[in-house]
Amino acid sequence: MAVLQKSFRISTRGHCDVLDVTEHVARIVAESRIEQGIVNIAGVGSTLGITTLEFEPGCVSDLRRALEKIAPAKSDYAHNARWGDDNGYSHLRSALVGTARSFPVSEGRILVGTWQQIVLCDFDSRARDRQVLVTVVGE
Amino acid sequence: MAVLQKSFRISTRGHCDVLDVTEHVARIVAESRIEQGIVNIAGVGSTLGITTLEFEPGCVSDLRRALEKIAPAKSDYAHNARWGDDNGYSHLRSALVGTARSFPVSEGRILVGTWQQIVLCDFDSRARDRQVLVTVVGE
Amino acid sequence: MAVLQKSFRISTRGHCDVLDVTEHVARIVAESRIEQGIVNIAGVGSTLGITTLEFEPGCVSDLRRALEKIAPAKSDYAHNARWGDDNGYSHLRSALVGTARSFPVSEGRILVGTWQQIVLCDFDSRARDRQVLVTVVGE
Repeated sequence: MAVLQKSFRISTRGHCDVLDVTEHVARIVAESRIEQGIVNIAGVGSTLGITTLEFEPGCVSDLRRALEKIAPAKSDYAHNARWGDDNGYSHLRSALVGTARSFPVSEGRILVGTWQQIVLCDFDSRARDRQVLVTVVGE
Repeated sequence: MAVLQKSFRISTRGHCDVLDVTEHVARIVAESRIEQGIVNIAGVGSTLGITTLEFEPGCVSDLRRALEKIAPAKSDYAHNARWGDDNGYSHLRSALVGTARSFPVSEGRILVGTWQQIVLCDFDSRARDRQVLVTVVGE
Repeated sequence: MAVLQKSFRISTRGHCDVLDVTEHVARIVAESRIEQGIVNIAGVGSTLGITTLEFEPGCVSDLRRALEKIAPAKSDYAHNARWGDDNGYSHLRSALVGTARSFPVSEGRILVGTWQQIVLCDFDSRARDRQVLVTVVGE
């Protein structure tokens, strides 16, 4: 049994920027030489999300629109009122979508569907430089 | 420390079919002989979800109705417009619910509540044959 | 490679009570002496959620309001009609938010952002005494 942990950084434009990070994750899984196990992908912060999506402009646009309905950028948020911030919606989206996900590693690769990419969604109200931790556990 | 990974297949009717997969998972956890650790349950694909629910017809119906409100089957989706597909809502639901979850293994069993079952939700617009990976890591 | 699993109990007031459990988790991670790996935090039950949030009254209030919009406490639920219960909304919220999350352990600590706390949300319609399992796997 072994564990490998690496992180990568990625620049976002904020405002629900959705970025495909599958290749970053795949590279770290390959480097771990772990054949079978679990990989955890965690964005660090309280205004981002990690999930999976067919990474094509249509699905990205649909996700952005749905999140805008669930937690509109321009609305009244107690977080904003309290701190003079403008990203109450970003915190809310992050709590609902989640900042980390785990997937199986099988035959030395992360096992997701053909049309299923791992995406980082930056819900913040400005461009950010994000850190993502990838932890592979297995043998 | 050990890892056991097995998969099972399950046929769904699509259209937000919600299936109890707890026994499938429990059997693989028992087979692993791992007493303490983590089990990851991952449906493969971008139009399904894995979560937990009290598996009784009322809760299933409530979940289906809520998802229909969040991401209606009959609505305009950029994914559909772009690809001539009809399952934009399925991709959206999958990104929001998530396709994989991890739970503790304790005393050789997956530890969930008495009224808490592991369910696969098939959000796709047609019947599917689904693969679910179960990975147990621990000792 | 090693695994440590411990649980703690916490009293809630129900009704979407949001509690910061980061210190409980951090203590178990420290006790494990695991430097690098994955920690899974799982609330036991079908009417609670585990997620992350900037734990300040504004974000807590925003999360409670959003969940009230997605799954209102006072509405018609098939679960309630069938069983004479009043917590159909609690089951629904739990299925959507999820009862367990995993995060990286790095340099002997759970790695989350400065403004990112691990919270237990009790969606039930009454005060509860909750069990939370913390499982650390790594080396």
